[in-house]
Amino acid sequence: MKIAKDIKELKDAISKFSGSVGFVPTMGALHQGHLSLIQKARAENDNVVVSIFVNPTQFLPGEDLDKYPRREEADKKICEVAGVDILFMPEISSMYHSDEVKLKAPSYLGYILEGNRRPGHFDGVVQIVMKLLNLVQPDRAYFGKKDAQQLVILQKMAKDLFLPYEIVPVETVREDDGLALSSRNVYLSAEERERALSISRALKAASRLIMAGEFSSEVIEAKMSEIMKDIDVEYIAIVDRDFRPLKKVKIQNSIILVAAKVGKTRLIDNLWV
Amino acid sequence: MKIAKDIKELKDAISKFSGSVGFVPTMGALHQGHLSLIQKARAENDNVVVSIFVNPTQFLPGEDLDKYPRREEADKKICEVAGVDILFMPEISSMYHSDEVKLKAPSYLGYILEGNRRPGHFDGVVQIVMKLLNLVQPDRAYFGKKDAQQLVILQKMAKDLFLPYEIVPVETVREDDGLALSSRNVYLSAEERERALSISRALKAASRLIMAGEFSSEVIEAKMSEIMKDIDVEYIAIVDRDFRPLKKVKIQNSIILVAAKVGKTRLIDNLWV
Repeated sequence: MKIAKDIKELKDAISKFSGSVGFVPTMGALHQGHLSLIQKARAENDNVVVSIFVNPTQFLPGEDLDKYPRREEADKKICEVAGVDILFMPEISSMYHSDEVKLKAPSYLGYILEGNRRPGHFDGVVQIVMKLLNLVQPDRAYFGKKDAQQLVILQKMAKDLFLPYEIVPVETVREDDGLALSSRNVYLSAEERERALSISRALKAASRLIMAGEFSSEVIEAKMSEIMKDIDVEYIAIVDRDFRPLKKVKIQNSIILVAAKVGKTRLIDNLWV
Repeated sequence: MKIAKDIKELKDAISKFSGSVGFVPTMGALHQGHLSLIQKARAENDNVVVSIFVNPTQFLPGEDLDKYPRREEADKKICEVAGVDILFMPEISSMYHSDEVKLKAPSYLGYILEGNRRPGHFDGVVQIVMKLLNLVQPDRAYFGKKDAQQLVILQKMAKDLFLPYEIVPVETVREDDGLALSSRNVYLSAEERERALSISRALKAASRLIMAGEFSSEVIEAKMSEIMKDIDVEYIAIVDRDFRPLKKVKIQNSIILVAAKVGKTRLIDNLWV
């Protein structure tokens, strides 16, 4: 595995590729969720590039940029073992210039739910993902369905700007007890982790209701609220794949989203129906 | 020459290319200036794509979008004769979606001079050029130095977003008497055309002053103002290649810019020093 510390090293290493390229952009602190992205990229492409870049422009003032978990050596090992060809770890200064041409997330999709809570976050996401995609020029780029809104925005970016890269969604990976994997899970105490399980339980309950023929968003949300009564639920949303609110779940075109705080840790999870 | 009326036709035609691709995006009403872009693209690439698309998002309310000159049949003939391989003429509806991921021109470079006069114009330019570049995926895209600010903004876009396309500047083409070619020249009456010549005369006078060792922007601008006293000068600017104002001309790193109204027609011209 080649570790590319700057753009020139990345370009040099990519120039030796032949065949298709799969790309997994990450912010490091790799876990089983990232690994499943890498494995899918590995299975579907001749070459695999992973980037680790904690992108400052997607953190808002007061967010956890400085204390975002960093585990460089472990991350390198994980990539090596997973068969990554190039691990790209650039400095911030090489990725940004002064007074840039900027990308803005869609005004609806970029500013509801996660975007309402974190205004400007998705502008930072589209800016850095656009840069990374153009540097790597992959055939396919892999993103987790756990960050559902991010995934839908990136798919919209690819469509709106006619990007010649395929955005590939990857299933959420869960612990045996259902907790969706997240780099932020490390912040949870044992007691908080136990309470956090109510999120995936609520989503499972929603799934069971739908399979039993209950499509009313109101009924489903009430059941989910009840299950998550011991954590600080920020929102439950039932939306279509364009994130328009639904009164009734539509099979094959719905996402059920939850954001909640457990102690000081903010968690998100969702179910694609 | 293949005329591609939609994105599918464009993609199909491009898929038959082998070798390098040169691209000339235009708004039609082709003149000798466009032809020089096409000829340069033809000389430097195995394949040449020209687009004709009068992009609505770069016109401000009240500007001349509806009466922007359209000469489809003549344009086709010019491209055919110039050896263009694909002429891409898409409908507006196929190029834009609802609530898009948007590009914004740099906040300084995009909002001074032309951007001050036409706020938002360069946002529309970067949006459409990004789309067209991604659709054509050229090795090189050609833009005229006459639209100096547009050219510098597009070069900045390519740099900031790490676009894998080269932005190639092309010299301004002039009539024998010095008038810079522009699609808007057709609006000039004979008398206005005569007065419009003072713009290129003022730039030539600036050039002579500099060659004689006079680098003071104040002195050069005063001389230019005097020459252009019979037209409605909007601005004279002497800037570096990042469009920062200069008190003294710097050889190899200056642009002298003029915008003026002659009758109802707004003209721009410049000199790269």
